[in-house]
Amino acid sequence: MSAAVFCTHFLLAQSPETNKIRQYRQANEHQLLSDFVSFLSIPNIVGDSISIRHNADYIMQAMRNKGIENIQLLYPTTVKSVPAVYGEVNVPGATQTIIFYAHYDGQPVNAAQWAKGLSPFEPKLLNASLENNGTIIDFPAKDKAFDPEWRIYARGASDDKAGVMAILNAYDAIIKTGMKPTVNIKFFFEGEEEAGSDHLHEILQNYKTLLQSDLWIICDGPVHQSGKKQVVFGVRGDAHVSISVYGSKRPLHSGHYGNWAPNPAMLLSQLLSSMKDKNGKVTIKGFYDDVVPLSVSEKNALKVVPPVDIQMKNELGFTQQEISSMSLAESINLPSLNINGMNSANVGKNASNVIPTIASAVLDLRLVVGNDWKRQQQKVVAHIKSQGYFVTEQEPTDEERKKYAKIAKVNLSSGYNAQKTSMDLPVAKKVIAALQSTVQDKVVLMPTLGGSLPLFVFEQYLKAKTITVPIANHDNNQHAENENIRLLNFWNGFETMAALMMMK
Amino acid sequence: MSAAVFCTHFLLAQSPETNKIRQYRQANEHQLLSDFVSFLSIPNIVGDSISIRHNADYIMQAMRNKGIENIQLLYPTTVKSVPAVYGEVNVPGATQTIIFYAHYDGQPVNAAQWAKGLSPFEPKLLNASLENNGTIIDFPAKDKAFDPEWRIYARGASDDKAGVMAILNAYDAIIKTGMKPTVNIKFFFEGEEEAGSDHLHEILQNYKTLLQSDLWIICDGPVHQSGKKQVVFGVRGDAHVSISVYGSKRPLHSGHYGNWAPNPAMLLSQLLSSMKDKNGKVTIKGFYDDVVPLSVSEKNALKVVPPVDIQMKNELGFTQQEISSMSLAESINLPSLNINGMNSANVGKNASNVIPTIASAVLDLRLVVGNDWKRQQQKVVAHIKSQGYFVTEQEPTDEERKKYAKIAKVNLSSGYNAQKTSMDLPVAKKVIAALQSTVQDKVVLMPTLGGSLPLFVFEQYLKAKTITVPIANHDNNQHAENENIRLLNFWNGFETMAALMMMK
Repeated sequence: MSAAVFCTHFLLAQSPETNKIRQYRQANEHQLLSDFVSFLSIPNIVGDSISIRHNADYIMQAMRNKGIENIQLLYPTTVKSVPAVYGEVNVPGATQTIIFYAHYDGQPVNAAQWAKGLSPFEPKLLNASLENNGTIIDFPAKDKAFDPEWRIYARGASDDKAGVMAILNAYDAIIKTGMKPTVNIKFFFEGEEEAGSDHLHEILQNYKTLLQSDLWIICDGPVHQSGKKQVVFGVRGDAHVSISVYGSKRPLHSGHYGNWAPNPAMLLSQLLSSMKDKNGKVTIKGFYDDVVPLSVSEKNALKVVPPVDIQMKNELGFTQQEISSMSLAESINLPSLNINGMNSANVGKNASNVIPTIASAVLDLRLVVGNDWKRQQQKVVAHIKSQGYFVTEQEPTDEERKKYAKIAKVNLSSGYNAQKTSMDLPVAKKVIAALQSTVQDKVVLMPTLGGSLPLFVFEQYLKAKTITVPIANHDNNQHAENENIRLLNFWNGFETMAALMMMK
Repeated sequence: MSAAVFCTHFLLAQSPETNKIRQYRQANEHQLLSDFVSFLSIPNIVGDSISIRHNADYIMQAMRNKGIENIQLLYPTTVKSVPAVYGEVNVPGATQTIIFYAHYDGQPVNAAQWAKGLSPFEPKLLNASLENNGTIIDFPAKDKAFDPEWRIYARGASDDKAGVMAILNAYDAIIKTGMKPTVNIKFFFEGEEEAGSDHLHEILQNYKTLLQSDLWIICDGPVHQSGKKQVVFGVRGDAHVSISVYGSKRPLHSGHYGNWAPNPAMLLSQLLSSMKDKNGKVTIKGFYDDVVPLSVSEKNALKVVPPVDIQMKNELGFTQQEISSMSLAESINLPSLNINGMNSANVGKNASNVIPTIASAVLDLRLVVGNDWKRQQQKVVAHIKSQGYFVTEQEPTDEERKKYAKIAKVNLSSGYNAQKTSMDLPVAKKVIAALQSTVQDKVVLMPTLGGSLPLFVFEQYLKAKTITVPIANHDNNQHAENENIRLLNFWNGFETMAALMMMK
């Protein structure tokens, strides 16, 4: 039960500062979670500018309540719909300034795909993960404790409203327990991350002086799958390619025309399968070119990353990874090509005897240092052409349909490049020490996160350094239905962020 | 305009009987279409047994109004939900008995996929096909004529409520114009055709004596794409295979796990593309075995089928058929493998950065004489296994996920075999002559329809002969969204069915 778990966990805590943060949190869990649920109840889908603004307003009010100063919205130049929320705390005697980053927007949702009883913006408490047969439970009475293995299910629960709340609550806990930060703190909460941070660079340009710092701490993503805390020195870049291929202009009876009229679902299958070999390696020409090899210290760090492949395969229910010769840690140091989704006509009870008119897929391309996102997209376009396709950005015209045997509509998203910070910088060593002060287990050092954040823009527009310190559980269903956060990860996030604010 | 079209068309009509049917129809178009719209407004999705029964009741009432005798529902043995509607007319002096078949059930619909303003069970009148920029128009006032190029849009408009109405109205027109049938007529309207006619054989067994005849006329499917009337002597068989392949048990972040976790959309693409070569030929072992070659008269008939490939490609908007060496007429004399639909996670605005957990496809297999539907399905299953898959009929268990690298859930539908009747039978020649009496253009003789009907059961359970006489326009979107019938095809259907009831 929770009491025993608290007790064990209490004994493992390292520094006196961490213990104080923990005690404060334990005394205030009901209020802290009540605030979190209120925040999660505000829809935050990228592109829904009214909801996005509600989130920004909520954060500004929370900052005011905590005595944070100079609170304001930072706007990009060309749109007003995706402001970042800013605030700061100046600490007398502090010589360094750290900016804490998280984002408050969330990935698109298809509410119908969420499990029974769950809904993206009606946060629910479960007594375990769905995968471990968790069920929805009521919030306990005020005099009862929360089991740290319980989870909150909602869009943004882990990605990345947990980050926003961990940063704000860590600061609040430092002040409320009579301690003080060792560094000047700036808060920066982005509202457009899940849409690719298209306007982040404009904000950085517009507020260049305000955003000077010695380091950005990026609080996003999951801790290591071993459950250990981790410091991540880079992120992959990201770009997307949407592809549609065409058959007849109108749906055809599959009996009267089957195997005479071209079937776009088959064409798309052939096209997608031409992009990878049976061993999971991408076969698009030059796909792995441009990759900058890992440094010696990065290679050494990778060697002592706790192995999680077998654990993860058991947990996820498969036996064979895509690239059979590579571990998970190795795989994420390569550029990737992944099908996010694929559709043509209907399956299941809505299937009918037709030849579909169109088949579509969305690919995401993850990039490592050395890749340029536009060049990587163009490699995919060149591959599609090499398969005999006429490529257009629009629905094909009748003239094009008459002229070309195979037509693909290809739309390229905006994207961004990968970024890495050296593990050997003095400030990097301070970050590692701060995290290590909160736990007995060795903190995991990762050259790069598998996921993507637009960190390159900080370097490009501010010459700033970034280090990522994630807090979410790895099995959080981030970006998908049934997103959730385990309470212990949420609580540990407070201690992690507080230690960074008090780094020595 | 309509008057001119009527006039031209009137001049082309052949027999005096056909002219009388036409005059009757012209005088009664408003009432005939009002009745049709009422019928189309009753939902008829297979599996919705209450709606199916409403359709059956509507047909029985229409039969009573037309003086048809011995009206009753014919039930299968094992279910009560899909009765056929039966009625008969005994003609003094007639020596032959013809059963007229159509079906009143329809394919599943996804109403959201229908064009703006259209809805499957709210029939609308359009002034042209959607593809020719037709728009919804009001029904004309009673003193205005219908343009025969106008169309009715609704599920079942062509497949196959038009067939039911053409048969009933043809009989009615014969009687109302003072003529009389030359053969005894039995009416048989099925309610389960779009679900594969699983219980039709039970009805035939239960009512074996009642259903004795010299010939079944099957009124279903479209006329030839050249616009000419056609007589079809066989149909392809049909069976389905549903396939799902699996990745992780839960959706994964495509950054953190992309190209390490298996992607089921890629696995499905590889599996589907392994089923056909680049030239459209099915590569599944033995797929084209078992096929009985065409007879000499069938080959000769095919030689004079009006060529429609170029016209159809222009109309449908593509340049390259699947099997590059074969015409449409040749292709439908082979077994086919067609993807009806394919899905994995989301595309478009709902796409998100995940690795999907599952990817699914539905295949339909069309069969020609010689193929056995179960054997054809098993060839597909054997192929899936040959690609390294463990095949199961259930969701994979955790044990299976641990044991097998690739898992496919494969579900086999029930199906049926192809059927053909000889073109050289005396009754076949009477049918051809009857059709020819209604038009000047040469009637097209087709060895087989590309589509499927469960005609083999008539032979198997009743030793009966079947000949298919379709009436719908070929561009009717049968089985898909925006199903429609062109009024001229509906009207011509009356003349065709009446000529058959008065065959000499």
